[in-house]
Amino acid sequence: MFNKNYLLPLDALKLIINSIPEGYLSIERLKIEECYGYIIASDVIAPEDLPAFSRSTVDGYALNSRDTFGVKESSPSYIAVKHEIFMGSVPDFKLGTGESAKIPTGGMLPEGADAVLMLEHAQIVSDDMIEVMRSVAPNENVIQKGEDIKKGETVLTKGHRLRAQDIGALAGLGITEIDVFRKPVVSIISTGDEIVPAGSPLKLGQVRDINSFTLSGLISEHGGIPVKKGIFKDDYDVIKDAMEGALQDSDMVLISGGTSAGTKDMTAQIIDDIAKIYGGSGVLFHGVSLKPGKPMIGGVVNNKPILGLPGHPAATVVCFDLFIRPVMERLGGLNSRRNFTKTIKAKMDKNIASAAGREDHIRVYLEEKNGELSAIPVLGKSGLITTLVRADGIVVIPQNKLGLDAGEEVVVKLF
Amino acid sequence: MFNKNYLLPLDALKLIINSIPEGYLSIERLKIEECYGYIIASDVIAPEDLPAFSRSTVDGYALNSRDTFGVKESSPSYIAVKHEIFMGSVPDFKLGTGESAKIPTGGMLPEGADAVLMLEHAQIVSDDMIEVMRSVAPNENVIQKGEDIKKGETVLTKGHRLRAQDIGALAGLGITEIDVFRKPVVSIISTGDEIVPAGSPLKLGQVRDINSFTLSGLISEHGGIPVKKGIFKDDYDVIKDAMEGALQDSDMVLISGGTSAGTKDMTAQIIDDIAKIYGGSGVLFHGVSLKPGKPMIGGVVNNKPILGLPGHPAATVVCFDLFIRPVMERLGGLNSRRNFTKTIKAKMDKNIASAAGREDHIRVYLEEKNGELSAIPVLGKSGLITTLVRADGIVVIPQNKLGLDAGEEVVVKLF
Repeated sequence: MFNKNYLLPLDALKLIINSIPEGYLSIERLKIEECYGYIIASDVIAPEDLPAFSRSTVDGYALNSRDTFGVKESSPSYIAVKHEIFMGSVPDFKLGTGESAKIPTGGMLPEGADAVLMLEHAQIVSDDMIEVMRSVAPNENVIQKGEDIKKGETVLTKGHRLRAQDIGALAGLGITEIDVFRKPVVSIISTGDEIVPAGSPLKLGQVRDINSFTLSGLISEHGGIPVKKGIFKDDYDVIKDAMEGALQDSDMVLISGGTSAGTKDMTAQIIDDIAKIYGGSGVLFHGVSLKPGKPMIGGVVNNKPILGLPGHPAATVVCFDLFIRPVMERLGGLNSRRNFTKTIKAKMDKNIASAAGREDHIRVYLEEKNGELSAIPVLGKSGLITTLVRADGIVVIPQNKLGLDAGEEVVVKLF
Repeated sequence: MFNKNYLLPLDALKLIINSIPEGYLSIERLKIEECYGYIIASDVIAPEDLPAFSRSTVDGYALNSRDTFGVKESSPSYIAVKHEIFMGSVPDFKLGTGESAKIPTGGMLPEGADAVLMLEHAQIVSDDMIEVMRSVAPNENVIQKGEDIKKGETVLTKGHRLRAQDIGALAGLGITEIDVFRKPVVSIISTGDEIVPAGSPLKLGQVRDINSFTLSGLISEHGGIPVKKGIFKDDYDVIKDAMEGALQDSDMVLISGGTSAGTKDMTAQIIDDIAKIYGGSGVLFHGVSLKPGKPMIGGVVNNKPILGLPGHPAATVVCFDLFIRPVMERLGGLNSRRNFTKTIKAKMDKNIASAAGREDHIRVYLEEKNGELSAIPVLGKSGLITTLVRADGIVVIPQNKLGLDAGEEVVVKLF
């Protein structure tokens, strides 16, 4: 059934990726608290040192490490406690030889001090004297001025997707606004003469729109803005109009469904026809060596990717991960260096066969069995949405493998 | 330095979990398109069959499988093509013996048909006759009425966090609103006499608030609503007032920082003191066998968890994962059966030592080396936010292990 000329998913994806400009989305300046999940549009350079002064990391005594050199339990040193340092203020004194100052965690080191002795390591002799029974290394228990980030250092690089701790680092540097790529707007055109909205009563022969809900969720989750364009009849003019409209006001167009006879060819025809009007390579592939997801179509018009998705719910989710997510990331200028797929290892619970020459994506659910994680295949046609609802993730059988054996260790891509 | 009486993180967490009611949050009814990431508050029962009729999964010919029994290439069968079925409409005929109807993918099977022969397997003899050279099994290429979901079946169970495909399944069943637990409101109280807001100019001795930005992002990402209460002075009355206020209008209270001398004890004291007023067990643990994160405090007042977090940025992120996330999930009634940590396997790049008796959480960044993923420790004090910015995830060294060897396979918990 698989056409030998069909490309593997990754090769098909490359055709699209190579036909669209990287980091093509415009840049906007946002407050950092709005930037979680956004992609940075330019390198961020530290405007100042972090911290701006040398701080203690413990509660203890700020001192000069030289005053403790060679000190041990049998020959302790006695150091005067001359001052106390308070949080958030600048010590207005300088330590002399043999002198120390009480310092709280986070407190600023006074002049003349280069280390902190932990409270627990000091024996209090009197109100103004401690006994030290071990030597303290220079910089011990100190974060030096600029040790976290040095002024002028590149803190975050263009193309990085901002995580919670990255926003924290920006706050720490006093950077309250930054340039990010705006989120890609992804249009979803649902097609099929039998499809009705989720809220409509069903006539016999009709089914409700499932895929636009699934796709919207996945697009938002991966940093895009989904726009549901509605449900359209399987008609050349109707779908061509919808596609042209979507190309105007979004960065990427998805056409879901079109499962009735001849419609697949019609979608491809429309992509080629509008490429003649607006420019672009038109259809780049039509069909891939993939199950589920074989009828996938990919093309580019006016620098914008257009992806035709099979109507089957399971194929929709698999094709999102293989095509839509990477294309969204390319549009948004994501630097893929740090873009790791979230996986978990498990043991296959059953033998699973696969045809040679195609990539099989098996839905599995996970269960602890005898202290080990088992991946249990969720069997059922790719048209069944419940195969996805029951599943926790996907196991990929590559094109050169004829299946998986029970007990074999597999990597599960988690939803 | 580690107190032998300190609990391991998981044991400390259990003390909190066992002191707060499960699924304690109130229930709200939302449109399904608003429910991505929410936790379902009651089982969802299918109000109807999905699909509501038997459908073809391919383009082909609907027929009665009995008419093809025993058929092979050497003795084909000839079947009349009497009708054509259109998408979204009900066939108004019944197939007789030896009869078929042209059917598109998704089309409704007519009475008298129990299977579909794929277009590619039929030889067209004339406009109204096909030659069949292989037998077709009953239900071949058919999704039967109710095969995806049967009316009355439990589709999703209480406590499940809704993913994109789950919302799709609800849409498919015509369920447009459901009951979910509202998101937990989590207050963040930042303390420290040296802390100033991110937007303020710095005086020497001061540092900017980093942790409330990191915590807000992590709380949102994990299905909560963060509320920044502001930055408060290290003063008993000030912090007690802030804590009482936060207890009134949120489901969980975080106190970040309080790193100055004596403040850790003060936070614990305040938790115990307000437990006397509002009820609850007060402080449940103060200090855990964990690095970074040793000074962690946990307590419960008026059924609401209060967590005192160390001021160090790296400790904040580690303690979020070990304490705050699981407590949020407990409040929200998450069923942990399907709650898998997202990980990736890698090889340690260097030896790393760890003290016995405590759990070490090592920040690592990941890099491909000779086709393998290497986990490279990000060294540096836990007070450095950049150790988190450079890292891709965390490797845990359990309390009974004295370190990790270079080349050892490790599981990296991805951020």
